[in-house]
Amino acid sequence: MKKIINNIDRVVDEMLSGIALAYPDYVRSLPIAEAGQGVIVRSVPKTGKVALVSGSGSGHEPAYYGYVGEGMLDAAVCGAVFTAPGVGPILEAVKTANTGKGVVMVVPNYSGDVLNFEMAGEMAEEEGIKTAKIIVNDDVAVMNSSYTVGRRGIGGTIFVIKIVGAAAEAGLGFDAVREIGEKVVANTRSMGIALSACTVPAAGKPGFELGADEIEIGLGIHGEPGVLRDRLKSADELTEHILVDYILKDNPIESGGEVALLVNGLGATPAMELFIVSRKAHEVLGKKGVKIYSTNVGSYMTSLEMAGFSVSLLKLDDGLKTYYDAKARTIAWRIC
Amino acid sequence: MKKIINNIDRVVDEMLSGIALAYPDYVRSLPIAEAGQGVIVRSVPKTGKVALVSGSGSGHEPAYYGYVGEGMLDAAVCGAVFTAPGVGPILEAVKTANTGKGVVMVVPNYSGDVLNFEMAGEMAEEEGIKTAKIIVNDDVAVMNSSYTVGRRGIGGTIFVIKIVGAAAEAGLGFDAVREIGEKVVANTRSMGIALSACTVPAAGKPGFELGADEIEIGLGIHGEPGVLRDRLKSADELTEHILVDYILKDNPIESGGEVALLVNGLGATPAMELFIVSRKAHEVLGKKGVKIYSTNVGSYMTSLEMAGFSVSLLKLDDGLKTYYDAKARTIAWRIC
Repeated sequence: MKKIINNIDRVVDEMLSGIALAYPDYVRSLPIAEAGQGVIVRSVPKTGKVALVSGSGSGHEPAYYGYVGEGMLDAAVCGAVFTAPGVGPILEAVKTANTGKGVVMVVPNYSGDVLNFEMAGEMAEEEGIKTAKIIVNDDVAVMNSSYTVGRRGIGGTIFVIKIVGAAAEAGLGFDAVREIGEKVVANTRSMGIALSACTVPAAGKPGFELGADEIEIGLGIHGEPGVLRDRLKSADELTEHILVDYILKDNPIESGGEVALLVNGLGATPAMELFIVSRKAHEVLGKKGVKIYSTNVGSYMTSLEMAGFSVSLLKLDDGLKTYYDAKARTIAWRIC
Repeated sequence: MKKIINNIDRVVDEMLSGIALAYPDYVRSLPIAEAGQGVIVRSVPKTGKVALVSGSGSGHEPAYYGYVGEGMLDAAVCGAVFTAPGVGPILEAVKTANTGKGVVMVVPNYSGDVLNFEMAGEMAEEEGIKTAKIIVNDDVAVMNSSYTVGRRGIGGTIFVIKIVGAAAEAGLGFDAVREIGEKVVANTRSMGIALSACTVPAAGKPGFELGADEIEIGLGIHGEPGVLRDRLKSADELTEHILVDYILKDNPIESGGEVALLVNGLGATPAMELFIVSRKAHEVLGKKGVKIYSTNVGSYMTSLEMAGFSVSLLKLDDGLKTYYDAKARTIAWRIC
């Protein structure tokens, strides 16, 4: 597998340097003790608000550096590729982001991430910083595995960051910010399909093999097993299958209900294919009387160069819509 | 090659439906006579300004639908995949975009595109619409080929659309808009590298083969041959080679000069790798005393799921900077 890199041990460090050099108006990279990991923070910190920190292993770009900025995150922790960030970098992010109003941490549900964010949160508490975790578990494909207790966190994490970020920016208190986060998690469901594996630079070869006509339904964003392997179907069949048989089955939305839709590319999927999926999602939801308040189509949470996509639905109400629409000024999500 | 599609003859139509359904606040899709092609226009047209139209074959998304909107294009013409749009759709785009001040057409330099935009322009002139073409030829890799007379147009086309779009939006007259476009073309150079081919849906297999350790330097965005095939090198070596031996050799920039930098992914290249390239580009340019005024890193003009990247440099002056920084509200490029 060919990669445009220099040194497998330096991919995250060099990426973080590249991000900080490219977008100094948005972010800067904190100097931290741990090589091969990092923390991206806003270049202009905002004080007097509840701080918001998220992150996980690298390889999901633009998650999470791309969501650092006004109206979204204060800091993103970037672990080694597909590896939970260490307690040290998370604690550094929490301490830097905190301006006295406490820190809410948005954590995708993988055992390593949850454990390390929890430990860092406890250490921050010992230093007098109030913290809380919002665990995102939007992936309806798989319940419990060797990677996760409960459901995994995937593309719907972006919805949580957007809305919790807007609530924090609007000046809501610590408990209110945490509660709105729990509500978004409860209202968000996602599921994905993979057509090919990706290659972690340090591994040098794809994480698994799929046949020439084979796909994996419900695959995780680190290549964790999904629900089943199947033959490639049409975009319309796949979209309807995911939406109707998994997402809406798990969390039915009544006719007249409103949702935000995210059709997310996993890294190597052309926008053309994502829009073909999104078109069908509109048709399926329209037939059920579900109103799509907003659609985003693109690569928002990737798995390096994996081919495939995920669909996320967030059930909205008027309160959530206000935060969904609020200004966001980040590299990967901008609402003017 | 697996694709998330329904019907190879309907990929462009379904994509355009998907775009219009996803982003009605930004764009709408014109009903046109030709199946398999389309025209994307602003959902809220702006009158009283020189209109700007661009486009080419589909498969380069988010070019060009993603650059339709305030401060950039009035209309984007979308041909079949990797195929110049027909005269009919181009004429439809020109007539719809025109509000009496004439239409400037930004055309990437491929023989088919140039010919069809020229014919459509002539037909529009016969109907009393003033038109002009700005031919973008930023790719320094190859001079003349069976695809193009002169140099090809690649990622630097985005710079032309951004600045000409801002100039038109600011109310500049027809000749002034055209002249600033010519200036941006003269100031822009690009070059790319491919690690793998992409598959046109109707072809069903990759357009060419590269060995497990092989890359093509200077490859075109439709898979046209480049300068040479080489063994994969480090990201730093590739970046320096492209910048120093091609881009700056063709258009030297003096110490103290200012540029905009675009590190563009061709479709399947992880952001991680693009930032590693961008980081080195900053180092190389910094050593030469060239100041980077702005950097953009991402997939702005793709070749379906091709792996690889291109680097574009635009030499800036104060006049161009004003237009570069002007507000843009489009799906793929937003400056608030």
